Amino acid sequence: MPVRSMAVAKGRIAAFGIPPSAQSRLRLDAHDRVILPGLVDCHTHAVFAGDRLDEYLARLAGADYAGQNRAGGGILSTVAATRRAPFAELLDCSLKHVAPLVAEGVTTLEIKSGYGLDRDSEIKILKVAAAMGPILKTRIVPTFMGAHTVPAQTERVPYLAWVADEMLPDVVASGLARSVDIFVDSIAFTLADLDRLFKRASALSCRLHAHTDQLGHTGATQQAAHWGACSCDHLEYAHPEDVEALAQSGTVAVLLPIASSFLGHAPPPPIEALRQAGVPIAIASDLNPGTAPVASLLWAAATSIRLWGLTPSEALIGITRHAAHALDPDADFGTLAVGQSADFGIWDIPRPESLLYAPASHRPAMSFFRGERR
Amino acid sequence: MPVRSMAVAKGRIAAFGIPPSAQSRLRLDAHDRVILPGLVDCHTHAVFAGDRLDEYLARLAGADYAGQNRAGGGILSTVAATRRAPFAELLDCSLKHVAPLVAEGVTTLEIKSGYGLDRDSEIKILKVAAAMGPILKTRIVPTFMGAHTVPAQTERVPYLAWVADEMLPDVVASGLARSVDIFVDSIAFTLADLDRLFKRASALSCRLHAHTDQLGHTGATQQAAHWGACSCDHLEYAHPEDVEALAQSGTVAVLLPIASSFLGHAPPPPIEALRQAGVPIAIASDLNPGTAPVASLLWAAATSIRLWGLTPSEALIGITRHAAHALDPDADFGTLAVGQSADFGIWDIPRPESLLYAPASHRPAMSFFRGERR
Repeated sequence: MPVRSMAVAKGRIAAFGIPPSAQSRLRLDAHDRVILPGLVDCHTHAVFAGDRLDEYLARLAGADYAGQNRAGGGILSTVAATRRAPFAELLDCSLKHVAPLVAEGVTTLEIKSGYGLDRDSEIKILKVAAAMGPILKTRIVPTFMGAHTVPAQTERVPYLAWVADEMLPDVVASGLARSVDIFVDSIAFTLADLDRLFKRASALSCRLHAHTDQLGHTGATQQAAHWGACSCDHLEYAHPEDVEALAQSGTVAVLLPIASSFLGHAPPPPIEALRQAGVPIAIASDLNPGTAPVASLLWAAATSIRLWGLTPSEALIGITRHAAHALDPDADFGTLAVGQSADFGIWDIPRPESLLYAPASHRPAMSFFRGERR
Repeated sequence: MPVRSMAVAKGRIAAFGIPPSAQSRLRLDAHDRVILPGLVDCHTHAVFAGDRLDEYLARLAGADYAGQNRAGGGILSTVAATRRAPFAELLDCSLKHVAPLVAEGVTTLEIKSGYGLDRDSEIKILKVAAAMGPILKTRIVPTFMGAHTVPAQTERVPYLAWVADEMLPDVVASGLARSVDIFVDSIAFTLADLDRLFKRASALSCRLHAHTDQLGHTGATQQAAHWGACSCDHLEYAHPEDVEALAQSGTVAVLLPIASSFLGHAPPPPIEALRQAGVPIAIASDLNPGTAPVASLLWAAATSIRLWGLTPSEALIGITRHAAHALDPDADFGTLAVGQSADFGIWDIPRPESLLYAPASHRPAMSFFRGERR
């Protein structure tokens, strides 16, 4: 049942329905419009410089993604461009990257570091992410992802030790992030690396996330679930026992259909097994220059329906409630409920499913973040 | 080689490069930006009322499109809503339908009638289409498509006779359209109907278009090519001999990847055969409430790459030059050449292919139609 009227006080949802006698500073009549929670994009790499158009064109001509990464392209080419960019320039282009998401009604946006891979650059990225929030009137959830890939001319083991034992404590202590993510794959980090990072992160009370089973099966989904990760993301190659582990730990499965369709050859994630096991499914844009240069959460959700057979209801919950829980099991955003942050959009659509049926056509008529109009 | 500077006079492209001494009323410096022809969306059904969200949801749950049409849903449900809508309301919602296309830099937009199927309603649709042009500063190319489907409680043969022998001459005489289109399929019209309509239309010097081989093979592609059609559209089930006929007649193959991906089960059109035969390929949005509710030509072009393996160059030519030729072999739009209409966009992108790599991120920094800024 779509919400048609709502009272807001002090930035939070105070009640549903408004008594005629209620006093208010501002009164908006939503008429026949639909009120939906502000959308939550729970997985992006939106702070980066440069593009990867050439690699995209090369992949269209037959190159493969893992090979590009091994040859020093892929993530590392964005690392080089992002390291070079001064703070102001990186902020400017990052604001451009996410502008279409904000225009779509995204009020919470996760942003991972991981295109810096050295102290100064990782901190620059996290500070750019933090600076974006007030400018965009959007909740930015920063995630430290020093364990995105191994930098050039660097050994994996000592690099990961530095990420876990030096960078992570500093990042947490300075308040730049309270979440951590790691990419476990044959082109990235190992299960042992995940254990080392998550052990340290757990001791620091960080929220845990992992890129798992994207390009092949590694067992990282189970391992991350055993650590109580908030989310495991990608999951194209996840097995039934991985799904079972997610269900037992209450971990959210974050699916990234744009990356999957850009890379082309991946199998679908185990949707039916996730459903049967009751694992909450979130959908995110994965916005990044390599595998998901499409700045549209609605497009990601629509793609999850056509590509993988999610239902419209699953897709809508996947970009609101479950996306919020992927970021924080105690999130005070992503749903319309009394006491939640008053992040919402007023949409001139007949029904919520219209957003997925015609994803290029609808933008919120009005968008509110913490009770204030954006 | 992207165009970087250009002189415009009297609404037309006057020269490339600008001599420093040239006098001009308005001088814009495109800096490092890219100048591209205004985009051409050569196949839409953008004038309609209502939506078909329920049918979309039913198809996701297993219903099929042909069955929905036979049961009185599909095209006929939009016909009912469009007949009911007063002119002003139909204009208003049609402007909303195409606003995202215009924002993307589309300066020429084909719009088919065919949701009226009676005299007054077909004329209302064509008049709405005509009214949209000046409001949007966009070239609207109207196409009379009384032969979209057979109205309820009507016999096909006398209906088609009325379309061909009564409506078409009146539409042409009143200047409402100079192009005609017909849907040949088991749920629509026959090869004999195509012959009857095209014979009359040729005598009236109309440009000919046909929806062919979309849901199954009918032979209509060959038949339309033999009549010298400007375009055959859809072509998922076209055979090699159909492709050969297109090549011989110089007919443009208009591919509609959004409809194909929405309907789900169609084979790809015979891309490689079209290439080998030298048939010009255009890409269009097919914007309509049933099978392509996605108002994005860039998305259609990006989908043609990922779904069917078109190259970025083919996709870019497919939404400019070839799309213009699909509408009119003598088009004075769709390319940047001296003497052509000065329809162009100035884009803040490194290269034209960026539009297809990141289709949600780019809109023209400035858009011009007939030399005037929109």
